[in-house]
Amino acid sequence: KGINSLLARGVYDSAFPLHDVSITETLLHEEWANYGVMHKYQPVDLIRKYFGEQIGLYFAWLGVYTQLLIPPSVLGIIVFLYGIFTADANVPSQETCDDNLNITMCPLCDGVCDYWRLSTVCSLARASYLFDNGATVLFAIFMSLWAACFLEHWKRRQMCLKHTWDLTSLEDEEVEKYIQGYCMRERKESRLQEFTDIKATFHVVATRAVCVCVQIFVTFSAVFGVAVYRICMLSVWSMNPDPEAKDSVRMTVTTTGIILNMLVVLVLEEVYGAIAVWLTELELPKTKEEFEERLIFKSFFLKSMNAFAPIFYVAFFKGRFAGRPGDYVYVFGDYRMEECAPPGCLIELCIQLSMIMLGKQLIQNNVFEVLIPKLKKMYRTIQEEKGKKRAAENSEVKEEEKRPKQQFDKDFALEPFEGVSSEYMEMIIQYGFVSLFVASFPLAPAFALLNNVIEIRLDAAKFVTEIRRPDAVRCKDIGIWYNILCGISKFSVITNAFVISFTSEFVPRMIYQYMYSVNGTMNGYTEHSLSYFNVSDFPPGTAPTTTLITGVTMCRYKDYRDPPWEPDAYTFSKEYWSVLAAKLAFVIFFQVLNEY
Amino acid sequence: KGINSLLARGVYDSAFPLHDVSITETLLHEEWANYGVMHKYQPVDLIRKYFGEQIGLYFAWLGVYTQLLIPPSVLGIIVFLYGIFTADANVPSQETCDDNLNITMCPLCDGVCDYWRLSTVCSLARASYLFDNGATVLFAIFMSLWAACFLEHWKRRQMCLKHTWDLTSLEDEEVEKYIQGYCMRERKESRLQEFTDIKATFHVVATRAVCVCVQIFVTFSAVFGVAVYRICMLSVWSMNPDPEAKDSVRMTVTTTGIILNMLVVLVLEEVYGAIAVWLTELELPKTKEEFEERLIFKSFFLKSMNAFAPIFYVAFFKGRFAGRPGDYVYVFGDYRMEECAPPGCLIELCIQLSMIMLGKQLIQNNVFEVLIPKLKKMYRTIQEEKGKKRAAENSEVKEEEKRPKQQFDKDFALEPFEGVSSEYMEMIIQYGFVSLFVASFPLAPAFALLNNVIEIRLDAAKFVTEIRRPDAVRCKDIGIWYNILCGISKFSVITNAFVISFTSEFVPRMIYQYMYSVNGTMNGYTEHSLSYFNVSDFPPGTAPTTTLITGVTMCRYKDYRDPPWEPDAYTFSKEYWSVLAAKLAFVIFFQVLNEY
Repeated sequence: KGINSLLARGVYDSAFPLHDVSITETLLHEEWANYGVMHKYQPVDLIRKYFGEQIGLYFAWLGVYTQLLIPPSVLGIIVFLYGIFTADANVPSQETCDDNLNITMCPLCDGVCDYWRLSTVCSLARASYLFDNGATVLFAIFMSLWAACFLEHWKRRQMCLKHTWDLTSLEDEEVEKYIQGYCMRERKESRLQEFTDIKATFHVVATRAVCVCVQIFVTFSAVFGVAVYRICMLSVWSMNPDPEAKDSVRMTVTTTGIILNMLVVLVLEEVYGAIAVWLTELELPKTKEEFEERLIFKSFFLKSMNAFAPIFYVAFFKGRFAGRPGDYVYVFGDYRMEECAPPGCLIELCIQLSMIMLGKQLIQNNVFEVLIPKLKKMYRTIQEEKGKKRAAENSEVKEEEKRPKQQFDKDFALEPFEGVSSEYMEMIIQYGFVSLFVASFPLAPAFALLNNVIEIRLDAAKFVTEIRRPDAVRCKDIGIWYNILCGISKFSVITNAFVISFTSEFVPRMIYQYMYSVNGTMNGYTEHSLSYFNVSDFPPGTAPTTTLITGVTMCRYKDYRDPPWEPDAYTFSKEYWSVLAAKLAFVIFFQVLNEY
Repeated sequence: KGINSLLARGVYDSAFPLHDVSITETLLHEEWANYGVMHKYQPVDLIRKYFGEQIGLYFAWLGVYTQLLIPPSVLGIIVFLYGIFTADANVPSQETCDDNLNITMCPLCDGVCDYWRLSTVCSLARASYLFDNGATVLFAIFMSLWAACFLEHWKRRQMCLKHTWDLTSLEDEEVEKYIQGYCMRERKESRLQEFTDIKATFHVVATRAVCVCVQIFVTFSAVFGVAVYRICMLSVWSMNPDPEAKDSVRMTVTTTGIILNMLVVLVLEEVYGAIAVWLTELELPKTKEEFEERLIFKSFFLKSMNAFAPIFYVAFFKGRFAGRPGDYVYVFGDYRMEECAPPGCLIELCIQLSMIMLGKQLIQNNVFEVLIPKLKKMYRTIQEEKGKKRAAENSEVKEEEKRPKQQFDKDFALEPFEGVSSEYMEMIIQYGFVSLFVASFPLAPAFALLNNVIEIRLDAAKFVTEIRRPDAVRCKDIGIWYNILCGISKFSVITNAFVISFTSEFVPRMIYQYMYSVNGTMNGYTEHSLSYFNVSDFPPGTAPTTTLITGVTMCRYKDYRDPPWEPDAYTFSKEYWSVLAAKLAFVIFFQVLNEY
């Protein structure tokens, strides 16, 4: 109890160790909290000595992570450059841009939309190739290996730090305690007691389950809401008679949609953080460690779901349930489900991912980590000034005023330390962005690297100058975060496999080249990947009312379905099933490859 | 050095601790090495006290494994009984047996073989259903969970034993040594030295690589040789004019093939064991532990490959490359590749697995573990008698002869102890049989359980009465065997997924029921799963020369291919691709299900 109970009763305002200016202003500033030493290793031993093991381990981990981001960043940039340099030789995008092929596509909305030429989406097809080429697949495989290496490397580094910092004894005690507990439990057969415990905590579990369900529901409805916004805006704007507005509608709607998504993610993240704390307090965990662990687990679950839901939507759901011409799927009566842009969903995924990742980092770093603390400080200074003025009016404490400010006065003005969890959380979510969908955006590691190099020094400056010196906490490793990292790495293999085979067009292109192409080249792929639709099969009211393109009897759409002149018109064709089998085989191949 | 160098120079014949008859004949015999106590737990603490930690851990592990085999055994028998009781209601096998459907199948060999009625394989189709029904899939999922539980349970038990037997300190020393080594190595950068090491050991590595390649080649050629034997025998016997011989040919060839396979497995296992020892000695490992570990790894690799190769062949390769009527695949000029029996490969896999597993256990337990030691003992007794006679002739040591036999004389007559590796190996290969292909043979756990209950007491009797008391060896856990178990468990998820989707007919049946069936029942499945072949498309010389079935214009074969009257005759049909996609989707589903 001691000081804590005095603090709780308000006898003292606060209790904290003082900053040691002789270290912070010289050693730590010169060797660490300084943009000038960005290219150097961090003085981890010094950090540990000054802040304790917990914070030392955090910065050591951040250092290892940032350092190991260098190879994938370089390779990602090379992959991107490869895309740029080979874009001109890419047959599918050439064919898309070729006006002579004269491919008429089915309208994108009912009634008001016209037929359109495939060559109008030429630039998007070119852009799509930058992220959807063979090198991306190799890069995704590399990234899975990289994740395994990263975890292994960190395990070794941690073991070494444990040895150097003499944390092994800490571990032994814990293990010994656990084993004793387990062996005794086995003998005592305390199941009956556990059962009553279960009954007692039932209402807590129920509350938690309901809360989590509500939050999952909120996240998904937010994603769905933005999708509905896009669907509605598209059909409303399409009715605009101005042709210029019509051309830009898709771009505008996509951009505003992404910005909306990002804002929702940022707002919900703060809300979920608060809810996770509340939920964990409900559970009344017995020790501080237990509290931390549960809180981390809950907030990680909610925050990551929140951050990744819009991206998962674009990667795996958008455009999958749109139906086909003549048999579209409608939501809310007469709004058609949204489709991806014609060159594939990958480019949309890529834009979405880059925007959310960059936006989140920029806004969080600048607003939450720099601006808000500054504002808080300013507010406090103003408050203090007021206090001083009042004091000056009363002219009672003049004597003390004149004394130079003591270190504890200075430190009291700083923000209290609130644990390293939020720092870890930010980095882990970033790790998720880097690994989960790297197959769609090879530049992600480079952006992460750039962010982290700055982040380390920003955090360093924060710890040294803006928050009170924390109590040194001993801990033997980074704990649950390591398990979360392992989980993300494992999961990323699956998501990347699915992104490559279902979001990108890698597999259909390969299948065309080696199974259907007459001369083994990609020529004719665009033609092959589009199905025919007889415009006379449009249900009443869905055919374009006015059209600039005359004499259209057949329009084309992106799918593998039998043409209207076959007996099973508009059912999935043999190509569809063979491509699907190849996609699934690729997923298995990719998974097995990464496991062994 | 000491006693070891004296032993090496032949000063002493042998050095070993003596058996303590007061313990072996009372406590150990009553509570352990006795079939009467089969239903009780083993006295593990006593075993450890008498034989040391290594052997104690082996029997503790064997006990846990045997105990945990009980639930899958019971469930496996239930699944099998479920198959028996629902066999009559099974539509596909009813349809196969229905003479009225009058399905004429294409001949099984060129020229001499006749067309045949599908209803002639009725009994095989019924037997096939016993192992290929919906319950088997659930059982395979259960077994994957079981494997995870088993490993987890053993980890806990081992931790507990470690604590009770005070083996934790042993571990700490090792870990500490390793970390020190690692951290120092990191600083010293001893890569150059490692490089020279690599050069020095290059010829050893080369020898090893060549040897392992040769052995892999031998194993595969053995499997392939047996396949060739079957192919040749089938075509030779088919020419036999006696109709009775013709009917039994398939059964005879399959049975002899399996027996051949089993003999090859048993012989090669002994050979590979010797080769593994020789190879490991070539490598000159520095410590005894290193030697053991390398030897185990090598012999496990070779022996398991040897034991599982014929089963893998039947599960995934047999009948996959046989071609189709009119376009068969031939080996060695004019022998057709072998096909599976018409109700599917699963029944053959099931027979193969049960025969190899049972045969291996019976022969190894009876011949290698009981008969050969007995023979050796007999041989030694005869030798001794001879020695005595000679001694009696010389009548020099008469005095000593009359003295009662000392304990060291008795123990010297026993077999020397040769490590627990071979015991582990046997059990681990059995674990492989139980887990890898459990989807095809749900009775495997029951057979394993039966074997192990006997095995424990057999081993116990061996340790107590037939071999010299071993030196007590301290070790902290079961070492590399745990990793091997983990590897097998992981691998078994994949093999079971592939067995269910590619060897069994579960997925095609489901697809038929939910996609193609007109009324949602299985009626018509047999018809749907057979393709048409126009007999006028037989290449010259391959059509049956004489036929008992008249008026055949179309014969049927098991595959999903377009019929002769469609434009793409005999190419894979839409059904083929959709079933393939479903199979692959099932593999992914099964894998993901088991991972989380």
